[in-house]
Amino acid sequence: MVQPTRDELGVVGVFNPAAIRHGDDTILLLRVAEGVREVAEDMVAAPVYDAAVGAMVIRRWHRGEHRVDTTDPRMTVIDGKTWLTSISHLRVARSSDGIHFIVEPVPALLPTTVYESFGVEDARITRIDATYWINYSAVSSYGIATGLASTRDFRVFARHGIIFPPNNRDVTILPGRIGGRYHALHRPMPAGLGEVAIWSASSHDMLAWGDHRLVAMPRAGRWDDEKIGGGAVPFRVRAHGVDGWLAVYHGVTKASGTYSLGALLLAPDDPSRVVARSIDPIMAPEAPYEREGFYGGVVFTCGLVDEGDRVRVYYGAADGVTAVADLSLARIIAGLGAP
Amino acid sequence: MVQPTRDELGVVGVFNPAAIRHGDDTILLLRVAEGVREVAEDMVAAPVYDAAVGAMVIRRWHRGEHRVDTTDPRMTVIDGKTWLTSISHLRVARSSDGIHFIVEPVPALLPTTVYESFGVEDARITRIDATYWINYSAVSSYGIATGLASTRDFRVFARHGIIFPPNNRDVTILPGRIGGRYHALHRPMPAGLGEVAIWSASSHDMLAWGDHRLVAMPRAGRWDDEKIGGGAVPFRVRAHGVDGWLAVYHGVTKASGTYSLGALLLAPDDPSRVVARSIDPIMAPEAPYEREGFYGGVVFTCGLVDEGDRVRVYYGAADGVTAVADLSLARIIAGLGAP
Repeated sequence: MVQPTRDELGVVGVFNPAAIRHGDDTILLLRVAEGVREVAEDMVAAPVYDAAVGAMVIRRWHRGEHRVDTTDPRMTVIDGKTWLTSISHLRVARSSDGIHFIVEPVPALLPTTVYESFGVEDARITRIDATYWINYSAVSSYGIATGLASTRDFRVFARHGIIFPPNNRDVTILPGRIGGRYHALHRPMPAGLGEVAIWSASSHDMLAWGDHRLVAMPRAGRWDDEKIGGGAVPFRVRAHGVDGWLAVYHGVTKASGTYSLGALLLAPDDPSRVVARSIDPIMAPEAPYEREGFYGGVVFTCGLVDEGDRVRVYYGAADGVTAVADLSLARIIAGLGAP
Repeated sequence: MVQPTRDELGVVGVFNPAAIRHGDDTILLLRVAEGVREVAEDMVAAPVYDAAVGAMVIRRWHRGEHRVDTTDPRMTVIDGKTWLTSISHLRVARSSDGIHFIVEPVPALLPTTVYESFGVEDARITRIDATYWINYSAVSSYGIATGLASTRDFRVFARHGIIFPPNNRDVTILPGRIGGRYHALHRPMPAGLGEVAIWSASSHDMLAWGDHRLVAMPRAGRWDDEKIGGGAVPFRVRAHGVDGWLAVYHGVTKASGTYSLGALLLAPDDPSRVVARSIDPIMAPEAPYEREGFYGGVVFTCGLVDEGDRVRVYYGAADGVTAVADLSLARIIAGLGAP
């Protein structure tokens, strides 16, 4: 369904979409990963955006002349330096029923800066007033930072630079102001000392973020014991006896490496405070296309559409395809336990 | 010269001081590291601030009952979890001549939050108008973040929370506004993909920081090829044919692990842009107390006082003691080369 941007490239995955209602439509902002189509057996290749020349280039290496490690399908390590096997951009898809989508033939957001030489990935969209704020992972050899863009119509996009320095991804901006400020969840990845945990921050202008606070940690011996991070943009829930922000997040299980989804209920006036948390996953890889694929054992969401009891979760399956699942808000809330 | 805060603790190091002029005095804000004084041979101990009870506690483990790794003198790894062998606080020292200091008998800033359970370290002081802004490393099992405090008199201090999430240390805030905004250098430490490099950010209120940009990277095959980070607070130079911000930074040499100092000259109107950079170190470990100590082969600055040609650098030597060196501004500038 998705056309590559160039003849030399092939689409290897369309996944981890942001999702939001726009008028009568459902909009997805898909991560489209492209790899080099033809690579000789004795070669390895990596597609890279070269900001100095302002163009995508294909780097190639002779396997015999370098130390090459291709253990992880997502990356190629050449003489100790990491390159990605694919480069991602963001593309709009539209649907009137939320199930059948038309994918635009051209990208919405392509890599354009030195911070995006390895691609732009995993967008989230937050509507505030008439503006749709888009945050995404800006990936390069400098690390994985979070960039910000905005649009009013999903046709013209403005870029606003890096809002969280590396490594920080899985940022979700809450759709509203609290105490006059914007709030976001973010997920720093400290090297050495530290934990891969969810933090919060606040901002008065979307561009500068401060007041960083720890929100949630992996839980030893549970389904989310390895690492956790933001998933879909939190939405306000006032139903079934709870009032707060419901944040669907992802958690990784240490023993299996499986990516599953759970929920955090955050205090309505302070989204850095977890009120309740899913005891068990609300979704785990089950279908063949979730268990097997480019990177198997993964369900990973960047966006959902909530309508009454129906929580329609759009998600990437096995880092390869985009899927959708309808969950019951009542059941998500019934599955919440101690924070 | 420095009294411990409690009988059970001994001062194991006084180093990495912030430095600034305050009226007729030179003020240092010393990092005072304290370790547990008496530990039985079959035990290991770690001093920790417990935010839940609001007090410093000493954790002890029987060596025989746990996997204990004490390879690095700065930390103890117990069953895979890292603890520090000492806990640091910040203490004021005053001098009228910049050489002879009186150290206050009590701390200025002690660990007080969950983000500081392993200590507060490596302060930098930036004066803007009548306020002295103090940033420091907030160290805990959650990682190494950067906290902000302020004072007008070095007697009463206000705290302002976390301004850079983990892992991010070696923050230096420029002493002035550029284009109406504050600017800082910072040093994220990405895990996995990424580089330990110096970045910049800007802020309108000191609390929320945005517009993150890459400033400088380690240089392959040079004295700063392993990692680099901010050192002293940058100061404005208009002399010897240059105009810009001079930032004395630290660089680590891969082969030896040595910490040396160099300088970056940053554009006066854009401190994210490096105009020139030291070819060779402006200071490297030479004296016995720099080459040998708690962690040998280290000169590390968090502050200097510039007066005409004399750049008086205060620095930590071998993570143990505080030392001072007078450098010539003309010679620092003469040693600058390509960015």
